[in-house]
Amino acid sequence: MLKPLGDRILVQVDEEKEQTIGGIVLANNAKEKPQTGSVVAVGAGSQTPEGKTIALTLKVGDKVIYDKYAGSEVKYEGTKYLVMHEKDVMAIVE
Amino acid sequence: MLKPLGDRILVQVDEEKEQTIGGIVLANNAKEKPQTGSVVAVGAGSQTPEGKTIALTLKVGDKVIYDKYAGSEVKYEGTKYLVMHEKDVMAIVE
Amino acid sequence: MLKPLGDRILVQVDEEKEQTIGGIVLANNAKEKPQTGSVVAVGAGSQTPEGKTIALTLKVGDKVIYDKYAGSEVKYEGTKYLVMHEKDVMAIVE
Amino acid sequence: MLKPLGDRILVQVDEEKEQTIGGIVLANNAKEKPQTGSVVAVGAGSQTPEGKTIALTLKVGDKVIYDKYAGSEVKYEGTKYLVMHEKDVMAIVE
Amino acid sequence: MLKPLGDRILVQVDEEKEQTIGGIVLANNAKEKPQTGSVVAVGAGSQTPEGKTIALTLKVGDKVIYDKYAGSEVKYEGTKYLVMHEKDVMAIVE
Amino acid sequence: MLKPLGDRILVQVDEEKEQTIGGIVLANNAKEKPQTGSVVAVGAGSQTPEGKTIALTLKVGDKVIYDKYAGSEVKYEGTKYLVMHEKDVMAIVE
Amino acid sequence: MLKPLGDRILVQVDEEKEQTIGGIVLANNAKEKPQTGSVVAVGAGSQTPEGKTIALTLKVGDKVIYDKYAGSEVKYEGTKYLVMHEKDVMAIVE
Repeated sequence: MLKPLGDRILVQVDEEKEQTIGGIVLANNAKEKPQTGSVVAVGAGSQTPEGKTIALTLKVGDKVIYDKYAGSEVKYEGTKYLVMHEKDVMAIVE
Repeated sequence: MLKPLGDRILVQVDEEKEQTIGGIVLANNAKEKPQTGSVVAVGAGSQTPEGKTIALTLKVGDKVIYDKYAGSEVKYEGTKYLVMHEKDVMAIVE
Repeated sequence: MLKPLGDRILVQVDEEKEQTIGGIVLANNAKEKPQTGSVVAVGAGSQTPEGKTIALTLKVGDKVIYDKYAGSEVKYEGTKYLVMHEKDVMAIVE
Repeated sequence: MLKPLGDRILVQVDEEKEQTIGGIVLANNAKEKPQTGSVVAVGAGSQTPEGKTIALTLKVGDKVIYDKYAGSEVKYEGTKYLVMHEKDVMAIVE
Repeated sequence: MLKPLGDRILVQVDEEKEQTIGGIVLANNAKEKPQTGSVVAVGAGSQTPEGKTIALTLKVGDKVIYDKYAGSEVKYEGTKYLVMHEKDVMAIVE
Repeated sequence: MLKPLGDRILVQVDEEKEQTIGGIVLANNAKEKPQTGSVVAVGAGSQTPEGKTIALTLKVGDKVIYDKYAGSEVKYEGTKYLVMHEKDVMAIVE
Repeated sequence: MLKPLGDRILVQVDEEKEQTIGGIVLANNAKEKPQTGSVVAVGAGSQTPEGKTIALTLKVGDKVIYDKYAGSEVKYEGTKYLVMHEKDVMAIVE
């Protein structure tokens, strides 16, 4: 498994569901691609200037909305994830 | 519901009212689109370098004026919101 | 009324007086538009990294000179104001 | 009078003396325009992150040399001044 | 051997395996070049502003995923390594 | 005399010696113009965020090598000096 | 001798050895020019915001690998050196 470092989290991106109208598959507008996903792993936390570790707020299972350009894509065993800093998460969907 | 992270707030943008002159609907000037809204959710607060959380000043229900380019638009159950940092709010309308 | 957030102040901009020479109204040179105004509201203060609030130096009624590009314009009940950070004020006119 | 805010000072710029050779007034070379002046007012001081005020080093009457692009020009009762941060002053002429 | 300074680590980059289809060697797509490697040496740690050293999180043997443009390439005795800051490592592969 | 402010020093630039070959004066290559000089005055020191003054390392008489673009030129009683921050000095020539 | 200031070190760059094949001298590829050298002098150390000096990690005699664009070239008594900040050194060759 992938373990994010520091204040990073690992997000499994929600799949874009294709819309079908009368049997024709319509690709989604690129501008509206999903920016939501589920947290599948979290780092140990951020570090104060004095070296103390502060646990992250997010936890595995949280469904999150994140900035459009947040994170770097990583592939692991065929699945695509985003590794991003917790601060790039805008909100939790409760 | 959406729960903003950290020092972020969730703002429901005031609707632009269309003006009607003699029955003709006039679109508003883009330059004058509303920059006011209502706070519908607030984050837990900002964090000091030592990891202490400082509660936000704004609270749910506050009517706010914000910078023109503040925030990121998020859609949730058909409604558009802005997620922004509290520091992007210029003033409260009392 | 508008209540500025944090280290912001609300400034009512001094009106540009039009000059009349022999009955002809002369528009002022844009480069010389007034950068003075009166403080009509002040925020609660700036915040230290540890979350302590430090009251602002300026108070309501102060006449101020500010940087040319300081502040954001806000309209409230037909009047134009500038919301700016106290640090954008250069000097008080005493 | 103008009272500079915080770590700012108010400088009265030394007048450029025009040179006359045989009765012809010569404009000074723009590149050599004076960057010296006299401090006519000082702010209360800079502020530490904890909100303590630290008095400035310069005092009224100091003759200073400042960076070419330092300060903002302000006009007050017909006289031009420069408002600048104390840190933009390079040296005192003693 | 190379000993990274401060908060740096030395990474031996995973070799790109060439794919063979029917005996024809296919070069990998440059965009998909591996961004994984193994930590072969770590620095003494980062330094607090007060000069205290904080040991790194990574240790020799860790398999890491790093940012695409992370690190500087160094050659040592014929082998290519990347020297990068620990903060450029996104995740550990466990 | 000029007294540098804060963490600044005043440097008298070493004169470029013109080379003469067979009586012809050769201008030096601009790229090799001297970047050495002598410290003729030093400021009171840098200031900590809490307002404590820390004396400079350099002292009057030190011969220094400085960055090519370091400092601002000031003229005082016909002599050219450089005012620069102590941190722009690379090394002392002992 | 040259004494680097603060957190700087003085590096004597390793000479590029020219390769000879069958008696023809081949210039090295500019892209592969050496980025290694030996530390010949070190500064007193970096300074904390409170003015405490922290000794450097490197010492005279260390063989170092540094960033391609690290340092400024200085000439002293006919020899070329690089003055760089210790943080620009990537690794020590042991």
